[in-house]
Amino acid sequence: MAAARALLLLLAALGPAAAVWPQPLRQLSPPAAARCPLPPGRFRFSYAAGSAVGPGCAVLDEAFQRYRALIFGASLPRLLGASCASGQCVLPPELGKARQLFLASSHAARPACPGDEDDPDFLVLMAVLPGALLTSSLSSLLLQYYVNETEIVDFPRFPHRGLLLDTSRHYLPLKAILQTLDVMAYNKLNVFHWHIVDDPSFPYESFTFPELSKQGAFNAMTHVYTASDVQAVIEYARLRGIRVIAEFDTPGHTLSWGPGAPDLLTPCYLGKDPSGTYGPINPILNSTYQFVTSLFQEVGAVFPDYFLHLGGDEVDFTCWKSNPQIRAFMEEMGFGEDYTKLESFYIQRLLDIISSLGKGYMVWQEVFDNGAKVRPDTIIHVWKNSPPYKEEMANVTKAGYRALLSAPWYLNRISYGQDWMAAYQVEPLDFTGSPEQKDLVIGGEACMWGEYVDVTNLAPRLWPRAGAVAERLWSNATVRNLQDAYVRLASFRCELLRRGVQAQPLFVGYCDHEFDGF
Amino acid sequence: MAAARALLLLLAALGPAAAVWPQPLRQLSPPAAARCPLPPGRFRFSYAAGSAVGPGCAVLDEAFQRYRALIFGASLPRLLGASCASGQCVLPPELGKARQLFLASSHAARPACPGDEDDPDFLVLMAVLPGALLTSSLSSLLLQYYVNETEIVDFPRFPHRGLLLDTSRHYLPLKAILQTLDVMAYNKLNVFHWHIVDDPSFPYESFTFPELSKQGAFNAMTHVYTASDVQAVIEYARLRGIRVIAEFDTPGHTLSWGPGAPDLLTPCYLGKDPSGTYGPINPILNSTYQFVTSLFQEVGAVFPDYFLHLGGDEVDFTCWKSNPQIRAFMEEMGFGEDYTKLESFYIQRLLDIISSLGKGYMVWQEVFDNGAKVRPDTIIHVWKNSPPYKEEMANVTKAGYRALLSAPWYLNRISYGQDWMAAYQVEPLDFTGSPEQKDLVIGGEACMWGEYVDVTNLAPRLWPRAGAVAERLWSNATVRNLQDAYVRLASFRCELLRRGVQAQPLFVGYCDHEFDGF
Repeated sequence: MAAARALLLLLAALGPAAAVWPQPLRQLSPPAAARCPLPPGRFRFSYAAGSAVGPGCAVLDEAFQRYRALIFGASLPRLLGASCASGQCVLPPELGKARQLFLASSHAARPACPGDEDDPDFLVLMAVLPGALLTSSLSSLLLQYYVNETEIVDFPRFPHRGLLLDTSRHYLPLKAILQTLDVMAYNKLNVFHWHIVDDPSFPYESFTFPELSKQGAFNAMTHVYTASDVQAVIEYARLRGIRVIAEFDTPGHTLSWGPGAPDLLTPCYLGKDPSGTYGPINPILNSTYQFVTSLFQEVGAVFPDYFLHLGGDEVDFTCWKSNPQIRAFMEEMGFGEDYTKLESFYIQRLLDIISSLGKGYMVWQEVFDNGAKVRPDTIIHVWKNSPPYKEEMANVTKAGYRALLSAPWYLNRISYGQDWMAAYQVEPLDFTGSPEQKDLVIGGEACMWGEYVDVTNLAPRLWPRAGAVAERLWSNATVRNLQDAYVRLASFRCELLRRGVQAQPLFVGYCDHEFDGF
Repeated sequence: MAAARALLLLLAALGPAAAVWPQPLRQLSPPAAARCPLPPGRFRFSYAAGSAVGPGCAVLDEAFQRYRALIFGASLPRLLGASCASGQCVLPPELGKARQLFLASSHAARPACPGDEDDPDFLVLMAVLPGALLTSSLSSLLLQYYVNETEIVDFPRFPHRGLLLDTSRHYLPLKAILQTLDVMAYNKLNVFHWHIVDDPSFPYESFTFPELSKQGAFNAMTHVYTASDVQAVIEYARLRGIRVIAEFDTPGHTLSWGPGAPDLLTPCYLGKDPSGTYGPINPILNSTYQFVTSLFQEVGAVFPDYFLHLGGDEVDFTCWKSNPQIRAFMEEMGFGEDYTKLESFYIQRLLDIISSLGKGYMVWQEVFDNGAKVRPDTIIHVWKNSPPYKEEMANVTKAGYRALLSAPWYLNRISYGQDWMAAYQVEPLDFTGSPEQKDLVIGGEACMWGEYVDVTNLAPRLWPRAGAVAERLWSNATVRNLQDAYVRLASFRCELLRRGVQAQPLFVGYCDHEFDGF
């Protein structure tokens, strides 16, 4: 686990139930905890003297602004009589004696309540972890504008806590992706796995190969992500402590690439003649690897994260088998009838290309299963349930590779009732293996595949269900009580409504602030 | 079937696919159908000389306005240079020579295209059926602002095509109910079954018993339906050809009534002492029947429809059995241990009260199953799947009662994939019985129970899934082809998006106008 342990000490505002989601490592309120009013006009975040970062750190400066608005509501400046212009507000001078929130990277003396003679200023000490802004813990406690003395010590159990969105089976507008990033941050999810292209459509506007989206998007004008859209997603995510890992899945799942990339896909044959349909990427042509090199050069530059997701799942061999040139190549290479060898041949060359670009890679489990030689730092993404995913987790880690779990977290697969509970009850380390193997599990990802999901139902299907995965990946393994989780998750879901997120109910009941964004 | 056969002849505008949902009885375009431009500025609906109704018929006058906006978009008046004030727009005089749409109640000569020498005016002939505005057929064909010559003959297969919403397990804001009524009309659904109160909450503000919602609503200020809200729903529905049937379910499903109605519910006992919890309505007290009479007097006056839905389902006998007064009454009445007799005793008195109010009633199937003596015009609502609902349909109709089917249409029960198909493939008359029995099936209702549904996920769960039920109840029994239905329903769903309805996708793909109301 890469993240250093960090401490978060704060005087947290408590509603009737001090429910934090995901559950922190430790959250303590003394039996006689002081209950202090938190007047919006006298509250501000600031950096403590001992903090490792200070003003000018955009990630935190902007987080402070966002969470201030979330805590007190967007209309706060007006309530305070501030004068606002161009998005900047100046508070009236009589509010100058602002109480302060201190940011600290280490434990500090517990601050006193406002009004205490010793320390008239109001203090909340916060820390930030690599990849996770803990300000969300605070704001979810602040509904009443009172703070109860609370000490929170926290750090994430797994460093990779992801969510996959699929923008190929249905196009998701930029705004929906950005809102998803907001809610990911509220849930302390820190990796956005962008399954950006696939068989049905190619919405990514490539400047190297503009024909890909021109020919492959559902609509080249309205259903594409421009370079500026992609930058917006990456920057919006960065400011929320979220990495963006793009997936350009090959050699299968590429039908939409065909119209804009002549000769890239394998022509399928019916008997002796081409049938007019196409299969996976053609692995026997040099032009294929030139194309892949150029495309991933671009993609590797556009997406700054060290890792790319290269896919590699569900390659259908039917078309390859039908093609006489492919069959001849198989014979020439001595692959016999084993098309997994041809698949690995392609993947191997792809992995070498990616390595030469200075990038790391994640792949779906088939790449490992089929025996491709991958670099030691490869992340194997476990998604299949047959054979049982626990066997695969054991095999992957036994071979010394890092494993990322998604198999039990395909949230697109809905069922009637409280299906968040099944996702919640998963234990990622519950497989047969040594402690060293367990250490190779870097986390997991909730997946929202797009066959039946677009902008009309994305938010209610994701939230709060993906929150169950978020807590499993963030909180201690001992945090498993379903009844307690239900109470906290229902309360967190009400807070999501207050923030304008269209999160669906867990069960019968109501929230003080219902969703009104429709 | 009460509705008289009516004919609808129109020159309908055709997009690339002339997909109408629900499928009309007959829709014909001649092989060389004329394709006529439909300039918005020269289009209006009007009544034909032979029409049974004319200007001043609010249901049609207002439908014309709504569908005009749906066809051409809300900004039409601006496009036309109209001057608008207080919601009324006046067209500029140069547009005075408007072409006309004629409403007719019988077949008429086919009109010519605009520009034809014989008939320079452009005509579309429409008819209205009792309980179903057919204007929706027209507007769904008009996307391109062209009309292709099309003849449609149509009438509904079943007169009762309903949708149940549950506003007790979660509160649904007025706006969500009104929008649902809009989409019901688009689907030619004509009965809104308002399951308004139940165990979890009592949001109906009664003027006879104001304490019911004051004590029983989730929040007496924000989670209630005022008299004005209820009137708004009824009037909004009426203008869309939709009846509102309110359900006040008794004697079970009434826990939320207790706090506002002392002595109404049965006190449960633990041994010799009251346990502090309550069961179904107490059927042995005279005060119960006084209360019920007063409440249904009010409800019967507020909801103008002849029918009330009285519930009568799922009465749990545990509490009655625990109560010594109830047991003594059972003995006194000679009911033995058969608590269904006590239930029927209550129901019988309730039905007599409703009759004395001059109202008809619908009941859930248990009332029939338990042998209560109901009036011949009672509608038995079939909802259970065990025993199989087809047996119940046979039994109910064999006993001479009218049957209403919901058992296969509990749309709250979601599953992964295209579950609209199961709802679509139901055949309501597929049970063993005589033609006279089949004639007693008045239709069905899609049910959206509220355990897991509130305003955040209502629309995407309902639409277009409830459309499958709508077509089954509207169109001919022979309209069953799934592939054809898929194409039309997918196209209809895109039209719903264009109208601002948050309808979820059937499968992979896109719409020209995606949902942008989020």
